[in-house]
Amino acid sequence: MKTRIEHDLLGDLEVPADAWYGIQTQRALDNFTITGVPISHFPPLIRALAMVKSAAARANRDLGVLAPHKAEAIIAACDDIIGGALHDQFVVDLIQGGAGTSTNMNANEVIANLALTKLGHQKGEYAYLHPNDDVNRSQSTNDAYPTAVCLAIQFAAEPLERAIVRLKARLEEKGREFADIVKMGRTQLQDAVPMTLGQEFEAFAVNLGEDIDRLHEACRLLCEVNLGGTAIGTGINTHPRYQALAVQYLAEISGKPIVSASNLVEATSDMGAFVLFSGILKRFAIKLGKMCNDLRLLSSGPRTGLGEIHLPPMQPGSSIMPGKVNPVIPEAVNQTAYQVIASDLAVTLAAEAGQLQLNAMEPLIVYNILNAMKMLEAAITMLDERCIAGIRANAEQCQRHVDNSIGIITALVPHIGYANATRIAAQALNSGATVRELVLAEGLLDEATLDRLLSPRAMLAPMAVAS
Amino acid sequence: MKTRIEHDLLGDLEVPADAWYGIQTQRALDNFTITGVPISHFPPLIRALAMVKSAAARANRDLGVLAPHKAEAIIAACDDIIGGALHDQFVVDLIQGGAGTSTNMNANEVIANLALTKLGHQKGEYAYLHPNDDVNRSQSTNDAYPTAVCLAIQFAAEPLERAIVRLKARLEEKGREFADIVKMGRTQLQDAVPMTLGQEFEAFAVNLGEDIDRLHEACRLLCEVNLGGTAIGTGINTHPRYQALAVQYLAEISGKPIVSASNLVEATSDMGAFVLFSGILKRFAIKLGKMCNDLRLLSSGPRTGLGEIHLPPMQPGSSIMPGKVNPVIPEAVNQTAYQVIASDLAVTLAAEAGQLQLNAMEPLIVYNILNAMKMLEAAITMLDERCIAGIRANAEQCQRHVDNSIGIITALVPHIGYANATRIAAQALNSGATVRELVLAEGLLDEATLDRLLSPRAMLAPMAVAS
Amino acid sequence: MKTRIEHDLLGDLEVPADAWYGIQTQRALDNFTITGVPISHFPPLIRALAMVKSAAARANRDLGVLAPHKAEAIIAACDDIIGGALHDQFVVDLIQGGAGTSTNMNANEVIANLALTKLGHQKGEYAYLHPNDDVNRSQSTNDAYPTAVCLAIQFAAEPLERAIVRLKARLEEKGREFADIVKMGRTQLQDAVPMTLGQEFEAFAVNLGEDIDRLHEACRLLCEVNLGGTAIGTGINTHPRYQALAVQYLAEISGKPIVSASNLVEATSDMGAFVLFSGILKRFAIKLGKMCNDLRLLSSGPRTGLGEIHLPPMQPGSSIMPGKVNPVIPEAVNQTAYQVIASDLAVTLAAEAGQLQLNAMEPLIVYNILNAMKMLEAAITMLDERCIAGIRANAEQCQRHVDNSIGIITALVPHIGYANATRIAAQALNSGATVRELVLAEGLLDEATLDRLLSPRAMLAPMAVAS
Amino acid sequence: MKTRIEHDLLGDLEVPADAWYGIQTQRALDNFTITGVPISHFPPLIRALAMVKSAAARANRDLGVLAPHKAEAIIAACDDIIGGALHDQFVVDLIQGGAGTSTNMNANEVIANLALTKLGHQKGEYAYLHPNDDVNRSQSTNDAYPTAVCLAIQFAAEPLERAIVRLKARLEEKGREFADIVKMGRTQLQDAVPMTLGQEFEAFAVNLGEDIDRLHEACRLLCEVNLGGTAIGTGINTHPRYQALAVQYLAEISGKPIVSASNLVEATSDMGAFVLFSGILKRFAIKLGKMCNDLRLLSSGPRTGLGEIHLPPMQPGSSIMPGKVNPVIPEAVNQTAYQVIASDLAVTLAAEAGQLQLNAMEPLIVYNILNAMKMLEAAITMLDERCIAGIRANAEQCQRHVDNSIGIITALVPHIGYANATRIAAQALNSGATVRELVLAEGLLDEATLDRLLSPRAMLAPMAVAS
Repeated sequence: MKTRIEHDLLGDLEVPADAWYGIQTQRALDNFTITGVPISHFPPLIRALAMVKSAAARANRDLGVLAPHKAEAIIAACDDIIGGALHDQFVVDLIQGGAGTSTNMNANEVIANLALTKLGHQKGEYAYLHPNDDVNRSQSTNDAYPTAVCLAIQFAAEPLERAIVRLKARLEEKGREFADIVKMGRTQLQDAVPMTLGQEFEAFAVNLGEDIDRLHEACRLLCEVNLGGTAIGTGINTHPRYQALAVQYLAEISGKPIVSASNLVEATSDMGAFVLFSGILKRFAIKLGKMCNDLRLLSSGPRTGLGEIHLPPMQPGSSIMPGKVNPVIPEAVNQTAYQVIASDLAVTLAAEAGQLQLNAMEPLIVYNILNAMKMLEAAITMLDERCIAGIRANAEQCQRHVDNSIGIITALVPHIGYANATRIAAQALNSGATVRELVLAEGLLDEATLDRLLSPRAMLAPMAVAS
Repeated sequence: MKTRIEHDLLGDLEVPADAWYGIQTQRALDNFTITGVPISHFPPLIRALAMVKSAAARANRDLGVLAPHKAEAIIAACDDIIGGALHDQFVVDLIQGGAGTSTNMNANEVIANLALTKLGHQKGEYAYLHPNDDVNRSQSTNDAYPTAVCLAIQFAAEPLERAIVRLKARLEEKGREFADIVKMGRTQLQDAVPMTLGQEFEAFAVNLGEDIDRLHEACRLLCEVNLGGTAIGTGINTHPRYQALAVQYLAEISGKPIVSASNLVEATSDMGAFVLFSGILKRFAIKLGKMCNDLRLLSSGPRTGLGEIHLPPMQPGSSIMPGKVNPVIPEAVNQTAYQVIASDLAVTLAAEAGQLQLNAMEPLIVYNILNAMKMLEAAITMLDERCIAGIRANAEQCQRHVDNSIGIITALVPHIGYANATRIAAQALNSGATVRELVLAEGLLDEATLDRLLSPRAMLAPMAVAS
Repeated sequence: MKTRIEHDLLGDLEVPADAWYGIQTQRALDNFTITGVPISHFPPLIRALAMVKSAAARANRDLGVLAPHKAEAIIAACDDIIGGALHDQFVVDLIQGGAGTSTNMNANEVIANLALTKLGHQKGEYAYLHPNDDVNRSQSTNDAYPTAVCLAIQFAAEPLERAIVRLKARLEEKGREFADIVKMGRTQLQDAVPMTLGQEFEAFAVNLGEDIDRLHEACRLLCEVNLGGTAIGTGINTHPRYQALAVQYLAEISGKPIVSASNLVEATSDMGAFVLFSGILKRFAIKLGKMCNDLRLLSSGPRTGLGEIHLPPMQPGSSIMPGKVNPVIPEAVNQTAYQVIASDLAVTLAAEAGQLQLNAMEPLIVYNILNAMKMLEAAITMLDERCIAGIRANAEQCQRHVDNSIGIITALVPHIGYANATRIAAQALNSGATVRELVLAEGLLDEATLDRLLSPRAMLAPMAVAS
Repeated sequence: MKTRIEHDLLGDLEVPADAWYGIQTQRALDNFTITGVPISHFPPLIRALAMVKSAAARANRDLGVLAPHKAEAIIAACDDIIGGALHDQFVVDLIQGGAGTSTNMNANEVIANLALTKLGHQKGEYAYLHPNDDVNRSQSTNDAYPTAVCLAIQFAAEPLERAIVRLKARLEEKGREFADIVKMGRTQLQDAVPMTLGQEFEAFAVNLGEDIDRLHEACRLLCEVNLGGTAIGTGINTHPRYQALAVQYLAEISGKPIVSASNLVEATSDMGAFVLFSGILKRFAIKLGKMCNDLRLLSSGPRTGLGEIHLPPMQPGSSIMPGKVNPVIPEAVNQTAYQVIASDLAVTLAAEAGQLQLNAMEPLIVYNILNAMKMLEAAITMLDERCIAGIRANAEQCQRHVDNSIGIITALVPHIGYANATRIAAQALNSGATVRELVLAEGLLDEATLDRLLSPRAMLAPMAVAS
């Protein structure tokens, strides 16, 4: 392999000749091999880094601290990367020491080398344009990196949100499809009172849909960035007008309402917005998991379970039992949900480990949040297309459950009293008779009244009752 | 012990004659002995339960489904309990099966018996006023209990918020007190660039203060209640106008902007608002823990640590080492923070375990959230009064650190270049000389310029620099 | 309240005149009010502390570093406390700063005062016998406290183990009781192949029973103690023969095979044995939770669930639905399991937070482990006595499930081939016919063969099959 | 792309013509895209699957239920895969529904196709040798998959253990290297009493080394497998002698002491051994994290921290601060440790989610355990080679700390009394004088005695002291 030699604080090192990254990226590549997952696994992060570098270059140019030709070359290089170029050059492992320095330097070096070629120079000729002095001008990893992360998460939230919106719409559609199928509601896995299958799916839709608003709120907190704070938030080595200008440019480039955090020292070490965001992902995972648990319960059977719905078969279920089809899609979603919950713990642990003016564990937070979002998006889409879309109701089973149920006696309580109702319920349980049969047999209500009270219309909603 | 006999679905049971609770509470007492922590440990929950019962009674009265004399007796009993009466009669263990039924019945029974005595009857004479038929009228545990919990958390949030506000004010005060003490900032535990000790404490204040807004947002979600949904959210056995009326009364009584959830079926099984609330407590715990870690680091010593601040000594630190004083208060806060983080996991696990129309694990969620709030409030107050208030700066040590520091060379980079700066830094590290000495020795800058660049004013903020 | 004045490093303080504890306990009482749970909540810890103090006193006496009359008074005081005396004097909150110093001093002070009265002196007359100089002689909190904790956990493990043994026996009994009830096994909530209900309960018994061995192994690791290491494991201020002697005495007094850790410096900061122990509790909680989930599934119904077993009704299930009985006992166990899992996280967080020669968060570890054990013991006993003991099988339902099942076709695969079996299974699913009917209709097997192959004997175990 | 058509329960599907896997793998590929991590990421799992298939084929052959030519072809195919062939054909995503069915079928299909070519047939000509009927003969996913996992974890434990052994040896080496460097020990970050830097590293070695035994114990539990239990542990569709024979063959092939679990029904759904194993990984991660925290503390500085050791510089530390070098390797290890702790939570959640006769979430458990082991191995090796190996002591700083320390007064307590010692300590703290100076000034001890008592020899170990 052909190489070129680069130099830094620690000395010389060979870098592959055709690499767009440089010596510090190479050192990080050598140092960190924990996950095998490189930055390029997360394009939103790469785009966000390039936007931050572009915004900084513009501000530096305007303030006269970066030569215009250098600034333009950097901006053009960033545009290319934002457009998708050279993503495969973002090679550092996501779990890395240095609080993101290696990720930041990977960006600085790729941008510097791309800008150098735009200026007619060779890769590595940093005398003409330097990763640190020029691309990283007026920045520290400690402000550039978290700022990019704040953006990256917002970018990644967009397709995730679209996936949730699609899933919600599908659930609503199923809610309408199943609107007339009356079934027994269950509390604590015990027969309760009637509802419709449509209400059940509608509730799923509402439940998951609420988190779209939560995501928006969490993204809002990510709009407050510490760009301009440099090393520890004091803004050392920046022009007094740099911070405002850079942030303004970043808002323009990103299309997000980015603003400066009110206290940059605080913002530099604070992981609060990430913790909150991760918490929202966890909340969504919990809800998703609960829904999939329900889908698996409702489709349990085919003969010895609840059997109220049929999931579409996606693959043979057993290597030994013929005809067995398993709820593989919800099961995979359940596992994804657990993984996301576990990711939130990693975020928690990392966030708590901040020390003094910085949190050195931020790369782990970034990895877990971006990875959780990616997994959730895939899981939601899979669930939507490969499961929910094909769910069919077992209407007969639902009706049979209602007809046999003892829980419907609840609807009679205002008319026959709690004591009578309790007695009839116990009798039904012991004898196997239906509530209807027993009430008629005792003459507690006439048939017409009973029919009226046990009609779906009466049982599925509040109704006027006598005191 | 004298007893009276009560009766329910399962038969007869003796209840202490002077107990204000009844048979179902007694059964729960016998069944559940896991934590030893009774409902009465959390007065906000008791008050909230009484408010819900009072609101329901008013709505039932207005709608003609509860006799006025019964309603008034119930309302009066609730008022007493809201005012603090009979809290010791809320005896059921917080970890309980039944999705809160035992807590709800504990409230129903205490209120019924108190109302009975107001009507001139004896405890247990439920023929005149019944825990289920009257106090619980138009309610199920499944709507009354979560509604009360939503209120209880908001009530408990008030003193917690006040404690945070006091702590924040104290930290700001310390920020002002230490505004002129220049010290070295540290990133990744390595010397970085200067800042003031005041900035460090101000950052703590800002950091913790942000969570007051988060608490408010989380409380807002708790204002959407499922009261009126009864068993599974369909509102079975309620009057069509009951829901709106009961919620309106509850808003009045509680003074909180309580509204109906948009979908009561969803709201009945959803734990999302609790998960979010718990997540905010966790976030606050993480921040609190990080700050206490910093306090312990900054006060490490007295001779072989950072030694930049002195914590007030609160107790002798060692049973063997004379004169040793330990940072016991921050240590206790750190442990509290861990416990709160662990509580959030319990909430997570319980929330994920909901099945179909209800979450049977809700009591665990309630226990953990209320307990976490109680612990946090105590920890914050302890930290404020027994630690932060008495912190003194070790100004000499702070200054010595700045004078010896190599990191201050960062401020010279725009003037002597990154390459020179790197070389000087390495030399300083190896020789033990100061940056100042080396720069002067090499004649890179004259003494006046150097003094200006290394002055606090120059290093602590952005400043005009030449390109 | 009458008080006496005591004195320490920080000055004078009033202590209640009748308190057996002293000034340092008083300071800790004032400082720490997080949980409200005092040491006395955990008698095994108090007994263990007294045993450590007694062992140290004996060793000190033998080595001539503690006057015999003092040693004897201390030993006698410890005996009283081991026997149950003065437990209410162990008042410090479990969450405390100082790495257990307050707990250790609480013990030192109570023992000193009790010993003083035995010698004819007044409480507080420490000139005659001193909490630090005499009771704590040759000890530091940093060795005496963890050593006591190692013992306390082992003591607490005894009743826990007995509870598990009882539960295991009960499950085995149920296994025998249900040995002849054939039912469908289920994988992934889908009908699989037949088994007996007895096998299901026997599997529970085996599953939980395995953890008795795990507890024993974990206790074995707790037998390695750091007593004699004093402040940081170097044994400063001890007699060269003290360590061996004290440990030997402790083994005698406690009846446990206590030995010295191989490296006392390591042992002083290591929390590994506690992490492992907590992990075993978590593992047990997971298993317990899984079993209770199964019990709730199997008893779901009564009409619209699996309904294969009946749990004994322990309390009315609903404040609104007559006759409803809920699986409240398993639900409470599930919640306990979640709490124990959460406790393990607290232990994890605390263990990771050790720094250099000590782990200041050890009190949190102790609190969570002892509390988890206490909760588990209560939950297991509740589950055993109030649920498992009363479980009845619904044999008809079990048989109906087998008869209707499609999964039994698995037993025919070696005889009719996977392809035929798959086709028949699909037909059965669509038509509602039974496997038996379809196989006979197609003439794939004669009735006698079919009866033989589908007999329980054939389906419940390996059997000779033709290639 | 050229394809071939295959058929299963759900119909026809195209499979790439050159794929060694078949239709069920293809369906799983289409269904599951959550992590992007295929089975081939974990070669030990592939090897283990092939060993299980080989053992089953041998047993089936011996028992006459599989034709010898088929058996030999299967065995040969397995040998190839054990030797490393076709690993890239194990393509299914690790997070998958179906309780491992897709992984099992991926193995069945690749082995069938490889065996087919050995027999002179084409891929996909399953009439001659079938993935289910032949390769999976006498097996279910539910026994073959967990059995393979038990083996895979043991295989993966081998390089992990070797890495720990190397790290331990390196720490011991450093312990010897630093044996004479006296330094202050610290408890609760406060100066305590002297020790050597060698003792500190030796303690690390002992601490981590202990977990080798724990790994062994955990592996022992993984030797009990449920092979032969088939679908739910009853052994349906196996020959009565199959189980014993297959397990015996598996022990031979794997070289591990594999035995049958005592209760196969229990073993089929039990995740206990995995939970325990994961717990050991977590324990190790906690210890590793604690050590890295210590390394970062001890190397903090270079001027304003503890500065007792120097970590080898691995990359420039800052994009803005010249000369800054950060502890990037320990930081990356800390993050790995957090990720492993989080993995354990995923395992916990999945384990708790088992239902009735199976745990459908087992693939998540497998993914997290194997991934955690892989990450730990990489992290340990990185830490060993890129950090520990190059650590140098700052002996002057260590000595300076001892000389200035107040904590050394502890060694004088037996000679001047606790009261005097406390007074001197306070004086030293306030005046800045050394303990030595003050003791001499007061004439409490003569210089010779003082020198003797404060000598390292005296302070670092137990010593004879007068009562």
